[in-house]
Amino acid sequence: MDDDRIDTGRSETEQAIMDATLRALAKHGYADLSIKNIGTEFEKSTSLLYYHYENKDELLLAFLDYIIDLFVETIDPDADDPDAELREFVEYVLPPEGDLTSCETVPAGVPSPIPDDSGVDPFQRAIFELRTQTIHDEEFRKKFTRVESHMVDTVTTLIKREMEAGHYREMNAEMMAENLMAFLFRSLDVRVTGTRLESAYAMRDSVYFLLDNVMPKEGNPTEAAAADTDLDHADDSDNDA
Amino acid sequence: MDDDRIDTGRSETEQAIMDATLRALAKHGYADLSIKNIGTEFEKSTSLLYYHYENKDELLLAFLDYIIDLFVETIDPDADDPDAELREFVEYVLPPEGDLTSCETVPAGVPSPIPDDSGVDPFQRAIFELRTQTIHDEEFRKKFTRVESHMVDTVTTLIKREMEAGHYREMNAEMMAENLMAFLFRSLDVRVTGTRLESAYAMRDSVYFLLDNVMPKEGNPTEAAAADTDLDHADDSDNDA
Repeated sequence: MDDDRIDTGRSETEQAIMDATLRALAKHGYADLSIKNIGTEFEKSTSLLYYHYENKDELLLAFLDYIIDLFVETIDPDADDPDAELREFVEYVLPPEGDLTSCETVPAGVPSPIPDDSGVDPFQRAIFELRTQTIHDEEFRKKFTRVESHMVDTVTTLIKREMEAGHYREMNAEMMAENLMAFLFRSLDVRVTGTRLESAYAMRDSVYFLLDNVMPKEGNPTEAAAADTDLDHADDSDNDA
Repeated sequence: MDDDRIDTGRSETEQAIMDATLRALAKHGYADLSIKNIGTEFEKSTSLLYYHYENKDELLLAFLDYIIDLFVETIDPDADDPDAELREFVEYVLPPEGDLTSCETVPAGVPSPIPDDSGVDPFQRAIFELRTQTIHDEEFRKKFTRVESHMVDTVTTLIKREMEAGHYREMNAEMMAENLMAFLFRSLDVRVTGTRLESAYAMRDSVYFLLDNVMPKEGNPTEAAAADTDLDHADDSDNDA
């Protein structure tokens, strides 16, 4: 992962159109997204949008390819240190460590702060909202199926590499990858929707329980039975490896 | 839970409007939903819609209340047998047991069958799609936050009751509830979006691993380390309790 701008091989104009689409999507949401409001966010002439893309659907598919390219770049199956790569990836998705103030003070049933306050990356939110369109659009579904399978496969590969290196115990790597992804998706989901930030912190604990106690050879997985992780001390969860 | 129509205390006309809204939402999706296409699905005059609801937003909030009422009915914290209630609830969300043909034959990266083939309840799909609107609509966010907290609290209550009865081992019931809900949400998500049915079956295994091995006093949670559940035999997962 790299915090600098990732080069996805797009031309400068295409890149500017992608940026404008992201801004328009963040402002208006998918339901109200139009070439017109993408044009408003675009520094050059709206007619240039039509030069590159025949219509809104074509532009959105190109945008989807773009954010998928960016998302795929967040995890590398060939990383030198697979465990470190997994940990860096989960931190990209999980809520910022120790930032519990926003949920601890919120009584049950009271809405969490709006998503803009939750530190969610605009790309993550755009991906989340476009993903819902898989219900109605087969092209979207194909693309998301491919990227999700790629994510699960990459996490599986990283786990298998640590098993082969003797750092992780023997396990069903694919099943473990599915569990990690379920926790990460839930964490991203409640942050993007702003529904239940408490759950995002519970997922942080659950992810680190797997990474620190269940997966490593020297971990203590029998603690899974007690599961005595304290929701109020989510930021302590990665100290017991 | 009851397969018969649940009485949510709505008048016959309100009920007919809710049914029409669900049909219109299923056909057109949230982005293209209008009073006009709800009217098309409604047997009586469209003007009656405006008599009951001032505009589309008001109708949709009423619809949201309706499906939330229905969803809340799917789990009862005071059920006679808490473990049985939990199992009935998870079966409502998980993919039908043993129906693996649709995903086993699909190579990685090839889209799963469209959602209409996945046995997903139209209510579940409607909830899922409306939930995405929490990103842009605070009223929606408040309602979903309330219902999700209610679900986690109810599952927590059922777990605590079995702990007190001595059937479940001592554990952090809230954390276990969050994990169960994460697996259930992921299962529902991939089924509704049609993205990765394999993941829904992996979640079935994961849920039953918790219910059969981790939670019961006589279960064998140390298997968590091996996690040798076989994705190809998801339908065997509840035989090892």
